[in-house]
Amino acid sequence: MDKKVFGVDIGGTTIKMGVFSGDGELIDKWEIPTRTEDNGSKILPDIAASIRQKMEALSIERTDVAGIGISVPGPVDDNGIVHKCVNLGWGVFDIDEEMKKYTGVPVFAGNDANAAALGEVWRGGGKGYNNAVVVTLGTGVGGGIIVNGKILSGSSGAGGEIGHILVNREETKKCGCGNKGCLEQYASATGIARMAKAKLAEDNRDSVMRNAKSMNAKVVFDAVKAGDAVAMEVAEEFGRVLGIGLAIVADVVNPEVFVIGGGVSRGGQIVIDYIEKNYNKYVFHASRGVKFALATLGNDAGIYGSAKLVIDGVSGS
Amino acid sequence: MDKKVFGVDIGGTTIKMGVFSGDGELIDKWEIPTRTEDNGSKILPDIAASIRQKMEALSIERTDVAGIGISVPGPVDDNGIVHKCVNLGWGVFDIDEEMKKYTGVPVFAGNDANAAALGEVWRGGGKGYNNAVVVTLGTGVGGGIIVNGKILSGSSGAGGEIGHILVNREETKKCGCGNKGCLEQYASATGIARMAKAKLAEDNRDSVMRNAKSMNAKVVFDAVKAGDAVAMEVAEEFGRVLGIGLAIVADVVNPEVFVIGGGVSRGGQIVIDYIEKNYNKYVFHASRGVKFALATLGNDAGIYGSAKLVIDGVSGS
Repeated sequence: MDKKVFGVDIGGTTIKMGVFSGDGELIDKWEIPTRTEDNGSKILPDIAASIRQKMEALSIERTDVAGIGISVPGPVDDNGIVHKCVNLGWGVFDIDEEMKKYTGVPVFAGNDANAAALGEVWRGGGKGYNNAVVVTLGTGVGGGIIVNGKILSGSSGAGGEIGHILVNREETKKCGCGNKGCLEQYASATGIARMAKAKLAEDNRDSVMRNAKSMNAKVVFDAVKAGDAVAMEVAEEFGRVLGIGLAIVADVVNPEVFVIGGGVSRGGQIVIDYIEKNYNKYVFHASRGVKFALATLGNDAGIYGSAKLVIDGVSGS
Repeated sequence: MDKKVFGVDIGGTTIKMGVFSGDGELIDKWEIPTRTEDNGSKILPDIAASIRQKMEALSIERTDVAGIGISVPGPVDDNGIVHKCVNLGWGVFDIDEEMKKYTGVPVFAGNDANAAALGEVWRGGGKGYNNAVVVTLGTGVGGGIIVNGKILSGSSGAGGEIGHILVNREETKKCGCGNKGCLEQYASATGIARMAKAKLAEDNRDSVMRNAKSMNAKVVFDAVKAGDAVAMEVAEEFGRVLGIGLAIVADVVNPEVFVIGGGVSRGGQIVIDYIEKNYNKYVFHASRGVKFALATLGNDAGIYGSAKLVIDGVSGS
């Protein structure tokens, strides 16, 4: 495709934007602030204005634009209907139609975790695979599922919400979602820090983790790399819970690869080792030996995936 | 479509077959035995011969046949490759190509649980829905997942193997698959009987279940309908484990409906009530309120689904 594609990733404080060639090379990227006032009514006009400026700066005509892809931090179904997006102040509306009014070019929207997953499979850690589960281990645990090269959005855009699968019926603390015992209570950056603090409180052994000013996933995995026995036990429990969670996901969708991203994944290969070992112990034999890879696009995964939404949408594939 | 479609459902002892009109009406159905000798090499020629006989009897010309759909009791990927089928004696081979040699018409194959799911969504309990999970509660727990009207086969044909998701890390007994704590150890007909027997052994209360000659799911749900307190506790635990299992599946694929079939589902609406109540307690809020329906095609689900594989395959949809 000769035409240019815009990829937009709307976050709670910043909107990341990129312009791509039709064959998927990133030409330029930039950011604008997210103005959430007035129920988020300024967000789409701000994006449209920023795209127009960039088109002028790069001498891109409107007829040279294939479309705009937008990733949204909330559920979006396959028809481009946003089903509420609380942190932007948005209710239920047709974002494809609305945005098209401001720009006059085709618009394709998706959920941010799903778009990031599509980006990683297109140009990142999952490149070359058609069936993938992308797992983002950050403040929470996000997921995006790619089946035959397409996002599995689900009936109301909530496909791939793997952070909230129940892994512990005995948990007494509530997850942010209101349930108890969700995967992200253990496998997110926050969850790892919580488990490490609990471990240090109940355990008398020396640990380099006790010297840390504040506890986080980096402290835990740095301690693991230094051979710290207490940290290794925390990492093992993290790997067991996430390994079981991903085994369950594989029993349902039978992917070729898991791509692991988010802050926790900066710990590198050792993070994957703890997950993969436990995964293979608990998964149904048909999904044993599935590949594990690190995500490679970092914060750009969303703009890549949004651009891919346009390329797939325009080609009708 | 004017042409006729054949739907074939290969079981371990019997092959069910049906001929359908192009718009999906069942014209005739019949069965032949499954001859598993010689590594199952007689199965496909037997099917081809039986179809030829039926074509002669009904005066159907080869040019009037759109194709043959075949459901196989083992993993089949989207390219028609069978990945071993132990109880038929089959290894890895291209069943679409092989069967086409015997018949000269297009062949479309799929896994039996997945084909049955497609049948239920096309003409049975899931009619009218595009995103469904069909759960078969029989000797084991089988699953078939339909996304945007299509089977989710997975990368090696093992999509929807929900009977083997881990629901109990504490289980000491092994499941048939070799793991411990799989969903089907509690939610299958076998699992319900096992739980009921264990309950009666550890509990001193009177129960009408004690009068049963042999224990099975019907005994349990008949006792529940008669107000038996012990049976109600068994049903509650069944509902809790399966409710949690399906909540997890919904967090992954976000369906519109669960269709419940298999022997256990003959207990009727009360079976669904126990599952649904617990499901809504444990699922992520975005998938709360998903519909539950009983399967309606019984043993014909496989031939319906196989016929639909042809209709979708021929239309290229």
